[in-house]
Amino acid sequence: MRAFNFLDKFDKIETNTMVIDKGLGYHYVEDFLKVCGDYFNFIKYGWGTSILYDDSIIKQKNEVYDSYDIKSYTGGTLFELANNAGKIDEFFAEADRLGFSAIEISDGSTVIPEDERREFIKQAKDLGFFTLSEIGKKNPEKDHEYTTEKRIELINKDLESGSDLVIIEGRESGKNIGIYDDKGNVMMDDLKEIVSNVPNNKIMWEAPNKNQQIDLILNIGNDVNIGNVNSNDVISLETLRRGLRGDTLGKV
Amino acid sequence: MRAFNFLDKFDKIETNTMVIDKGLGYHYVEDFLKVCGDYFNFIKYGWGTSILYDDSIIKQKNEVYDSYDIKSYTGGTLFELANNAGKIDEFFAEADRLGFSAIEISDGSTVIPEDERREFIKQAKDLGFFTLSEIGKKNPEKDHEYTTEKRIELINKDLESGSDLVIIEGRESGKNIGIYDDKGNVMMDDLKEIVSNVPNNKIMWEAPNKNQQIDLILNIGNDVNIGNVNSNDVISLETLRRGLRGDTLGKV
Amino acid sequence: MRAFNFLDKFDKIETNTMVIDKGLGYHYVEDFLKVCGDYFNFIKYGWGTSILYDDSIIKQKNEVYDSYDIKSYTGGTLFELANNAGKIDEFFAEADRLGFSAIEISDGSTVIPEDERREFIKQAKDLGFFTLSEIGKKNPEKDHEYTTEKRIELINKDLESGSDLVIIEGRESGKNIGIYDDKGNVMMDDLKEIVSNVPNNKIMWEAPNKNQQIDLILNIGNDVNIGNVNSNDVISLETLRRGLRGDTLGKV
Repeated sequence: MRAFNFLDKFDKIETNTMVIDKGLGYHYVEDFLKVCGDYFNFIKYGWGTSILYDDSIIKQKNEVYDSYDIKSYTGGTLFELANNAGKIDEFFAEADRLGFSAIEISDGSTVIPEDERREFIKQAKDLGFFTLSEIGKKNPEKDHEYTTEKRIELINKDLESGSDLVIIEGRESGKNIGIYDDKGNVMMDDLKEIVSNVPNNKIMWEAPNKNQQIDLILNIGNDVNIGNVNSNDVISLETLRRGLRGDTLGKV
Repeated sequence: MRAFNFLDKFDKIETNTMVIDKGLGYHYVEDFLKVCGDYFNFIKYGWGTSILYDDSIIKQKNEVYDSYDIKSYTGGTLFELANNAGKIDEFFAEADRLGFSAIEISDGSTVIPEDERREFIKQAKDLGFFTLSEIGKKNPEKDHEYTTEKRIELINKDLESGSDLVIIEGRESGKNIGIYDDKGNVMMDDLKEIVSNVPNNKIMWEAPNKNQQIDLILNIGNDVNIGNVNSNDVISLETLRRGLRGDTLGKV
Repeated sequence: MRAFNFLDKFDKIETNTMVIDKGLGYHYVEDFLKVCGDYFNFIKYGWGTSILYDDSIIKQKNEVYDSYDIKSYTGGTLFELANNAGKIDEFFAEADRLGFSAIEISDGSTVIPEDERREFIKQAKDLGFFTLSEIGKKNPEKDHEYTTEKRIELINKDLESGSDLVIIEGRESGKNIGIYDDKGNVMMDDLKEIVSNVPNNKIMWEAPNKNQQIDLILNIGNDVNIGNVNSNDVISLETLRRGLRGDTLGKV
């Protein structure tokens, strides 16, 4: 039973929230899901972290995430490494063996021709994975080469290719990348231009910092899709979505 | 038994320390209390977080906090939401049912007339709750409208109304609010003016950041009441209070 | 078994990594070691924290750290406090009783004559402890009095005295100290001058922040010794060392 259930704050918000797992212990995951397992539906094993520990822990974690209807996937960096090594078929098979139910296709650290990208998205879909694709470069200088128009074009192309959700790169830091300036503030003009030209329910904004989450909620809506949330901040984000925190109280 | 007990650092400091719980798992709480349960005596379930998870977890956590003589309460935001909904009696009853032993009365996100505030403090006291009241606005622009003189007046009025402890708002960030400038530095003139005009053992300073904790300890004393401490920083704060860390070693 | 083992990223890197324990619970430690226990070999109970909780927890934690071949020691601040109290023999005996296998000799918060420092290093070694010594002052103003030449001289003297590893102070914050400016950026000229004049495998750089870890890895090598790593960041650091994260992918 929920506490304080005489307050009218319980309508389920239809949205997507993605949390980063950068090496969480299994018992920690079990414990924190009891508190916040209803408030996110994607877990990303950040970048190449899932290579570094025993596969039995990955399988265990994926099972418990799955029991909360949380889709799991590895960071796109691992996909890119597999592609560089010419081992994409092995990559998809291994993701399946480990219990990952989603795949991220990205080119944040490497160069992948557009037609190959399109093929990878299709291949992941055909194999039954929920397929996310990411727009953005890890290196800020390279990322800044993308104009807003280019980002919009890339988003819409990915959706045409069959991507289920398109992620806008924000990294773990949320600074000097994508729609964020070097202090982590949202560049509102860029945000609004993108929002006007894409289907918003198909976009997931990586927004690790609270000020970014607030700006997205207040400008796009409390059902905006948000990713790269720290595991300690899931409940905080949900209170922002529902106006249960000063920053959004009375505004959502 | 304590380690290194030949060092003369074990006198209990009579003070109040308040920690934020923004959605901690039950087993995590059990585990971390074994390390630091002697070093704080208030736990605040931040803002409206306690609405979002099963009441059985709240009850369990309140019981284990209680076993360490740690008083629990919900963030004032939840009190304000209940007040807005005209459900204050239900709020107090529910807090009691869940095992909360303290109440925070605040107007950080809403407007509450002074006489109503006074009544709420009395009502909470009459119901047997340890009663904290908070001075400050969540919105920095509104908070800046308070002069230091006004803050002093409000503090003393709350104490006259029966408040057991008056909290000075610092938020989770500790920036651009109350006695903190936009970089989170303590504005010393403001601090000193308040300290000279209120009973210091009745004030709790929200001070989430280490530099703030150091400034408060070195300027007010190592028994200054400090709140909004991160659950990972309880032991760190206690070492600062006791001169067990470079920043205060030889100075307290 | 490791996941994604068709990728060629599994060669063990011969290096030293030191993590700070600033009051971790026992079960948390057990849980997180299953994920990252292979990727660090020193644990430091920061500054004077180990005084504050029951010695049975310290012994338990030291046993489980030991089972992963992770050497444990108390922060140098505790050594300095014992020295100030004239209780160095008691300090070494107590460290042994609690299962600490290493000792840090420092003068970050106090003044210790050079010949006494040399004696302490020898004494710790003779007692069978792995012996680390630290160069740097906790107080930034005092720390800035050290020229780079002086740091180099002190490092080499400590090594002559028998120190197994010399730590360059970076504090928990990594700002305005040692080789870091007040924003936490590495001062490259200072770094390079030190690196050219000392045996690098004998130096451990305290580098709590990701940008610092990246700069050290890209400038000194992926086997650079790094310390003051947050317990949440062990896996992240190892991905940086191996080129499994965008920042170092293709560069190590």
